[in-house]
Amino acid sequence: MELLFLGTSSGTPTKTRNVSALAIRSEGARHWYLVDCGEGTQHRILHTRLSLTGLRAVFITHMHGDHCYGLPGLLASAGMLNRTEPLLIMGPGALQRFIAGVMETTQLRLPYALEFVEVEDLAPLSRLPDLAVQPVALSHRLPSYAYSFTEKSVENRLDVARLEREGVARGPHWGLLQQGGEVTLADGRVLRGADYLLPARRPRKLVVGGDNDTPALLRDAVRDADVLVHEATYTEDMLARVGPGPQHSSAARVARFAAEAGIAGLVLTHFSPRYQGQERGERNGGLSVADIADEARRFYPGRLFLANDLDRFILDREGHLATDPPGP
Amino acid sequence: MELLFLGTSSGTPTKTRNVSALAIRSEGARHWYLVDCGEGTQHRILHTRLSLTGLRAVFITHMHGDHCYGLPGLLASAGMLNRTEPLLIMGPGALQRFIAGVMETTQLRLPYALEFVEVEDLAPLSRLPDLAVQPVALSHRLPSYAYSFTEKSVENRLDVARLEREGVARGPHWGLLQQGGEVTLADGRVLRGADYLLPARRPRKLVVGGDNDTPALLRDAVRDADVLVHEATYTEDMLARVGPGPQHSSAARVARFAAEAGIAGLVLTHFSPRYQGQERGERNGGLSVADIADEARRFYPGRLFLANDLDRFILDREGHLATDPPGP
Repeated sequence: MELLFLGTSSGTPTKTRNVSALAIRSEGARHWYLVDCGEGTQHRILHTRLSLTGLRAVFITHMHGDHCYGLPGLLASAGMLNRTEPLLIMGPGALQRFIAGVMETTQLRLPYALEFVEVEDLAPLSRLPDLAVQPVALSHRLPSYAYSFTEKSVENRLDVARLEREGVARGPHWGLLQQGGEVTLADGRVLRGADYLLPARRPRKLVVGGDNDTPALLRDAVRDADVLVHEATYTEDMLARVGPGPQHSSAARVARFAAEAGIAGLVLTHFSPRYQGQERGERNGGLSVADIADEARRFYPGRLFLANDLDRFILDREGHLATDPPGP
Repeated sequence: MELLFLGTSSGTPTKTRNVSALAIRSEGARHWYLVDCGEGTQHRILHTRLSLTGLRAVFITHMHGDHCYGLPGLLASAGMLNRTEPLLIMGPGALQRFIAGVMETTQLRLPYALEFVEVEDLAPLSRLPDLAVQPVALSHRLPSYAYSFTEKSVENRLDVARLEREGVARGPHWGLLQQGGEVTLADGRVLRGADYLLPARRPRKLVVGGDNDTPALLRDAVRDADVLVHEATYTEDMLARVGPGPQHSSAARVARFAAEAGIAGLVLTHFSPRYQGQERGERNGGLSVADIADEARRFYPGRLFLANDLDRFILDREGHLATDPPGP
């Protein structure tokens, strides 16, 4: 599974970070998925290999503008590219009214259908060919949701050691057995695939949170997850200064939760524009995303990343998360 | 007067051009004006010295998304900057419904008032301190308008030659006379300002068109204008290929109109994303904005510019348009 961050800023864009959007794709797939679509998401997509005709579904975590104001323009541009495939859009019920209102007042007509699925009833979404999706309710100023994405099928793993031990020569028979079929060898032996398959690996699972001040609401969802993507809008210090009104998480709170839950990989995003510098104390009175990273590292011993725009991550079949290309 | 192009692409953004937006400012003024606000306009503004707290009014030419989808995000960001000054928004009546719908469905609350003025009745807007605004109806797939901006007051010009001839020494008296006041000299002479002022220069006038397939609709508006900013979405060849459906202008049509009308300065913008290259034949099957420039130059002998994103122009007191910094 591939994650490509299209926007990592909270509230407003900065010169280096756009507002929220994250692309998810099964490896090698033409189709891809978008979680949130802040203004300017289509602009970021121009700098990737993603195409608006390959977008299969959009998931909106909540209705704040920095998570959805890019959707009308993205839909319009997909229309100008003569997209015809229907587009699935899952999000709060207000999202459909938002889009309908924009389309009516700006006379936007699309050459493809939009299929809205309301997230409020928290029903699993099983119609995607490669991923099962499950929403989770979070805690924010307005209804906000996380989405978990779980691989629908894992490849069969052939017990190569047993085949070699039993003298079954490598060849087309192996392929048939891996697919679970039955084969008859030249010497008359009949083999059943089920007997030559290793226990299946665990399907990969990724949880992407919307804005949320209570990471523990994701406890059940992350139990069998490899990676959590979560907002860490500021450090604990700044959260105390800002007060609880905005209902965001600090790096410490997310990191402590991820550590307790035993999640192997954590990607923080959605940083307040206060944190302008990449290096500690670089600018803006010393506030830097590195401060958020430092705070998270104090509490979380796993694989931690702080997303930048256009950062690409690979979650491999062993559930190991790494940057792509691999970082230093 | 200063013009700063924030977006010069038609329909969809490209890697180098954003969708439509143009900033206008009286020289040295803190306040400025925005004509159209395509998605990502606030992102472009981050790369200028303009501030969302200094924005006095927004003028929307028509309701197509590439001219207005950036407005909700820009309003939200101005709110996060704690703007309190009311913002004037002039445009089609549907604009107010568009914004109201977005604000309701995304729970956007602003710490400043929005004052909508509908453009449909074509009434002059006289409440701005520095510029008089007059809308003009154009011809497009949906109602589209141009806005003319005329300086409200021109500085008094003192008849220095006469003062010197009459032996009035340079000093505070000159300033009083320039302001139209009356002064009594040491030798008892009484001078009235009105007698020592040269005829006032013509106020500068700028006309900014929205999407439009009939430039001649601007004939009256440009009669006393120094500069016309108009779309030239493609060349005449491409217009013939695309057909009249989109109701855009070719470079040739705008250029011929501007030449016949005797406009001193013409800035073309809103180029189809088909024209990707800056140089002739650079990319994309040879289509380049230079082709649009070449076609316009064949018909228009005046000062011609093809706008790029973040291009800045100065219209000086003599009505002379130049790039800033001045081009080669």
